[in-house]
Amino acid sequence: MQTRDLVNQQTRDFVSALRFFCAFVLLLTATTTAALAEEREVGVSPWGPADEIGRLNLITPKSRANILSRIDGRTAYDLSVEYFIGMPSWQAAGDPRYQIWMTHTPQGTVVDDPLHVGKKKNIHVSYTGMAVSMYTHTGTHIDALNHFGLNGKIWNGFSALKHLGDRGWNVTGAETIPLIIARGVLIDVAAAKGLDMLGDGYRVTRQDLIEALDKQGVDLQEGDVALIRTGRMKVYEDAAAFMANPPGLGMAAARFLVEEKGVMIVGADNLSFEAFPSELEDDYVPLHTYLLAQQGVPILELVYLEDLSKDAIYEFAFIGGSLKLRGADAAPIRPIAIPVR
Amino acid sequence: MQTRDLVNQQTRDFVSALRFFCAFVLLLTATTTAALAEEREVGVSPWGPADEIGRLNLITPKSRANILSRIDGRTAYDLSVEYFIGMPSWQAAGDPRYQIWMTHTPQGTVVDDPLHVGKKKNIHVSYTGMAVSMYTHTGTHIDALNHFGLNGKIWNGFSALKHLGDRGWNVTGAETIPLIIARGVLIDVAAAKGLDMLGDGYRVTRQDLIEALDKQGVDLQEGDVALIRTGRMKVYEDAAAFMANPPGLGMAAARFLVEEKGVMIVGADNLSFEAFPSELEDDYVPLHTYLLAQQGVPILELVYLEDLSKDAIYEFAFIGGSLKLRGADAAPIRPIAIPVR
Amino acid sequence: MQTRDLVNQQTRDFVSALRFFCAFVLLLTATTTAALAEEREVGVSPWGPADEIGRLNLITPKSRANILSRIDGRTAYDLSVEYFIGMPSWQAAGDPRYQIWMTHTPQGTVVDDPLHVGKKKNIHVSYTGMAVSMYTHTGTHIDALNHFGLNGKIWNGFSALKHLGDRGWNVTGAETIPLIIARGVLIDVAAAKGLDMLGDGYRVTRQDLIEALDKQGVDLQEGDVALIRTGRMKVYEDAAAFMANPPGLGMAAARFLVEEKGVMIVGADNLSFEAFPSELEDDYVPLHTYLLAQQGVPILELVYLEDLSKDAIYEFAFIGGSLKLRGADAAPIRPIAIPVR
Amino acid sequence: MQTRDLVNQQTRDFVSALRFFCAFVLLLTATTTAALAEEREVGVSPWGPADEIGRLNLITPKSRANILSRIDGRTAYDLSVEYFIGMPSWQAAGDPRYQIWMTHTPQGTVVDDPLHVGKKKNIHVSYTGMAVSMYTHTGTHIDALNHFGLNGKIWNGFSALKHLGDRGWNVTGAETIPLIIARGVLIDVAAAKGLDMLGDGYRVTRQDLIEALDKQGVDLQEGDVALIRTGRMKVYEDAAAFMANPPGLGMAAARFLVEEKGVMIVGADNLSFEAFPSELEDDYVPLHTYLLAQQGVPILELVYLEDLSKDAIYEFAFIGGSLKLRGADAAPIRPIAIPVR
Repeated sequence: MQTRDLVNQQTRDFVSALRFFCAFVLLLTATTTAALAEEREVGVSPWGPADEIGRLNLITPKSRANILSRIDGRTAYDLSVEYFIGMPSWQAAGDPRYQIWMTHTPQGTVVDDPLHVGKKKNIHVSYTGMAVSMYTHTGTHIDALNHFGLNGKIWNGFSALKHLGDRGWNVTGAETIPLIIARGVLIDVAAAKGLDMLGDGYRVTRQDLIEALDKQGVDLQEGDVALIRTGRMKVYEDAAAFMANPPGLGMAAARFLVEEKGVMIVGADNLSFEAFPSELEDDYVPLHTYLLAQQGVPILELVYLEDLSKDAIYEFAFIGGSLKLRGADAAPIRPIAIPVR
Repeated sequence: MQTRDLVNQQTRDFVSALRFFCAFVLLLTATTTAALAEEREVGVSPWGPADEIGRLNLITPKSRANILSRIDGRTAYDLSVEYFIGMPSWQAAGDPRYQIWMTHTPQGTVVDDPLHVGKKKNIHVSYTGMAVSMYTHTGTHIDALNHFGLNGKIWNGFSALKHLGDRGWNVTGAETIPLIIARGVLIDVAAAKGLDMLGDGYRVTRQDLIEALDKQGVDLQEGDVALIRTGRMKVYEDAAAFMANPPGLGMAAARFLVEEKGVMIVGADNLSFEAFPSELEDDYVPLHTYLLAQQGVPILELVYLEDLSKDAIYEFAFIGGSLKLRGADAAPIRPIAIPVR
Repeated sequence: MQTRDLVNQQTRDFVSALRFFCAFVLLLTATTTAALAEEREVGVSPWGPADEIGRLNLITPKSRANILSRIDGRTAYDLSVEYFIGMPSWQAAGDPRYQIWMTHTPQGTVVDDPLHVGKKKNIHVSYTGMAVSMYTHTGTHIDALNHFGLNGKIWNGFSALKHLGDRGWNVTGAETIPLIIARGVLIDVAAAKGLDMLGDGYRVTRQDLIEALDKQGVDLQEGDVALIRTGRMKVYEDAAAFMANPPGLGMAAARFLVEEKGVMIVGADNLSFEAFPSELEDDYVPLHTYLLAQQGVPILELVYLEDLSKDAIYEFAFIGGSLKLRGADAAPIRPIAIPVR
Repeated sequence: MQTRDLVNQQTRDFVSALRFFCAFVLLLTATTTAALAEEREVGVSPWGPADEIGRLNLITPKSRANILSRIDGRTAYDLSVEYFIGMPSWQAAGDPRYQIWMTHTPQGTVVDDPLHVGKKKNIHVSYTGMAVSMYTHTGTHIDALNHFGLNGKIWNGFSALKHLGDRGWNVTGAETIPLIIARGVLIDVAAAKGLDMLGDGYRVTRQDLIEALDKQGVDLQEGDVALIRTGRMKVYEDAAAFMANPPGLGMAAARFLVEEKGVMIVGADNLSFEAFPSELEDDYVPLHTYLLAQQGVPILELVYLEDLSKDAIYEFAFIGGSLKLRGADAAPIRPIAIPVR
């Protein structure tokens, strides 16, 4: 090793030590500052440091068997909406709208012969192919725990710096969301209030939930999928009306569901899920950060609850599998509700 | 009305009548010619001229209740694959590959402030958003009945000329596919032959299916979802290997399933479903046209059957809802298998 | 040949003859009917039946040399707008909005290592990659002659049935548009009227053009690129304002440009190009069908003319090459104006 | 203010000061460490700390006028390739391939009536609309200076942390690239060597460039656009052949062009631009980081040079405007070469 290299090495060692110290201070103070300023941090999983699915851990062979042993399979309710160009979608931040297009048509195939099989076969075989693109939060979908975090981290302390690449998160991605089979409960707030639809910007309270459950004569249990009906689905085909100043859940209502009742997933029939403006000064989506990042509770949005409401079905098996989009922050799902006997 | 207009009107009337006659002749002779030349036409639905879902009509309250009354909910099998950049997909005809990208990241949001909430909130709230695009035949999916037709028509005689717009079909689109709850049967052809995976280009025969069912000690019933295991899923993460010269079902095997056994849906664990080259001279995808267009049988592709195979689960409740993509020729699905007692 | 085959053959021959007759009648009467009803048909090219570029044939070595021999290269005007999420775009028919996204970021590359080069290299080399998607009529662009046709045909009689596949037209696609080097003339209608911007829905008249040219002291010549300034570009960054009830060219003004003055291309600084409602009962975009389909005149839209207007530059070399998107109905272009001496 | 708040405030002040010190140390040492470890850093612009365009600053009224005063406008060479599904594109890192699709067809519009104008108008007006998506480095394009950086920074020290959002860079984006009008020089290395095409993986040397220029009898000048012809364009329509083990420029050749000759832009007729494996141990794309990040030299790729080569046109006006994609790391361009007299 030459002198220049040696000096370099010593400089490097000192620099490394200094850097380590400073990084440590920054880390500590980051936590301190944040704690002082916010007192809000992401949740630490009771299921251990490797946990990526939060309260979905509540699904067990026993919980599944329990609910499935009670179902009456003669009816099955479809809890999802249709996807179409112009459908409601979240636009405030510039996300892409739902698109669908043809990649093959019977007539186009005759002109193009993309498979080099000749005109005769292309006339005989009528080929249709299509493609889609969408924001992951389009149509009936589930938010993965990484969708919103706090201070650069998500549920269970995974940090963007370490875990977020250019194709999504290498932890807690939508592919980690297990099949969901659980007791589902509809909380029909709109119906309990004698309304078709909650008013613009209405914020559902803890008391609203309690009253609706009372009226329905059904209680929540640990591990439930709780689905709040605002009634907004009535205007689903009119995207502008659907998205404008939507009703949503309030913080106290969310806390009631999770901390008092122990539910596993919270869902609603609209897209915002929250009401605006936010109840918290420093957070523009406090329900999302509370549920996803602090409590490990996935969120279902755009759940179609109209038929359940009409038939007064409040308790059911909720069965669904969201698309396993590796690394994704959300995924479409078409859930099924099968009433209990 | 002036003379010129009157003449025009009379000319128009004659022309209209002549056009009507000729269109009628063309229609008739089109059918005749095709019948002579091909003797293959799309099927006419026994469920009537408005039917858009073919054999999915076999799902009834009774059929659902029957299978659901027999399940053992302690286990549930996930029948779907993961979506990721580079995953196997159909490329021969230039279709788009699966893509996923970030639309919001915690750090990018701090730089962009897309919601105009200010730096402090953007640092505190860590926002992740993503978008996807894909050919509809990507990952575990179901082919709608319009995916392949014959002579310009699809199942039940709906014609492209009348029903195919620029955003898909206004009949038989994926949004018409009901929730699927039915008896499912795994036909593990690979295992029955003592193989990990059927050989390249192997074409499954009627006899193969009979032997596998025999060995498994399970028979098919009308309305079943029959899932053929080739074993190809073992190389799913290697797209080139997965797609190269795949094994597939033969025509006689397909006829056995539908015409002898009355199954409702046929599925497999690969993407081609068919083996190549085609068994029919005039049709490059005869299994698709036979099942979809002639028999009204939807096809499931890329079904994940490895766990069922490993645990020797041959009979189960098949439960799944495909995305309701309006007008689409196929849709992703994440089906669930729950074994029977 | 067996008897059955012989009968089949004879039947086929008769059917073929009958079909041919009827197809012929339909063809004839289609023309007749249309002529009676519409009296509007696509243009037949004076440059022969193979012509795909219409009046762009007016570009010759001599025409190019003429205008280029007169330029003063000290200044060059940029005639294009910027592309960004939320930019003005044509939405009435559900077309996709402009999107741009990251496929590689310096930090994401460190997490993902997509090229398998290891962490050290990924930290050292900071990789940025991006992708875009857009309707072809986004930003400054040129409409190819196939963008609008009449009665199933486009300029020079090419029919959709024969020439339109699933990836566009196999004639007249954007890849056939030659490099455009021609005399350009700004017709600053807004300025001639002493306005910042023509009023909502204002329809530019023949007289407006004549007066503006008079005021500018410049006349049109055969083969010119005529660019109409409405002033609407002033609100380009506000997409809603830009798109709402735009001013546009009237039919008489278009006829003046093409039939009286012989221009080669007509352009404007807005996206609609036309004013609404249409002047023709049976055509919702009569300027487009007139220019593209009947006259073989490409249209330029969203041309940035503010700087030319400010500097009162009315005559210039127009130089530009649109992207050679094979089969496309339009293509982005970033044209340059170089004033003449 | 309460006592608790006061304590919090003091703690915050101390923490802030400590954080500032540490951040400063980290910043300083980051530079030091990097310098020691790599001795490769991004370039500092001689045009000042706000400079975003590097050597494109060499375009001046005088430089433009100089080259344009010498052109012979009778011929104009098209330097761009066509875009089509299946075209060569960079796939190693999972980027999206070029896609083009129909959003409107004459026949689909009749079925869909997307503009609610009624069947009659839709039959009369034949509407074609299309959309595209692509990686920004598709077809003939220019790399912006942010495409590759070093150690988290790009040209002139702009850092990803501060300037890279989710829709690209807020400095040096493609929208900042000015109209390019400059002297262009073809360096036909393939022809100089008597080859149709340089061999697989061939790395062009400084000597190769000198010999080609000698043979051509043309020298480089400061501010030139230097275009290297490898001949690979001959297999452009065969994407696999085009992309496989391409020839490229060597580091010494690049240094010769920039440091000895002072060129402004370097381009080539292939997509890799570089030859692989890399000449530098710590950098997998050293030509890109050298030119873009260290020297502020934009790169042109997939430039179509075949016609210039055939006609032995070595000196010309290079005229082109790349699409102004806000924030982008590259943009398509269709450049024009007009020979000098």
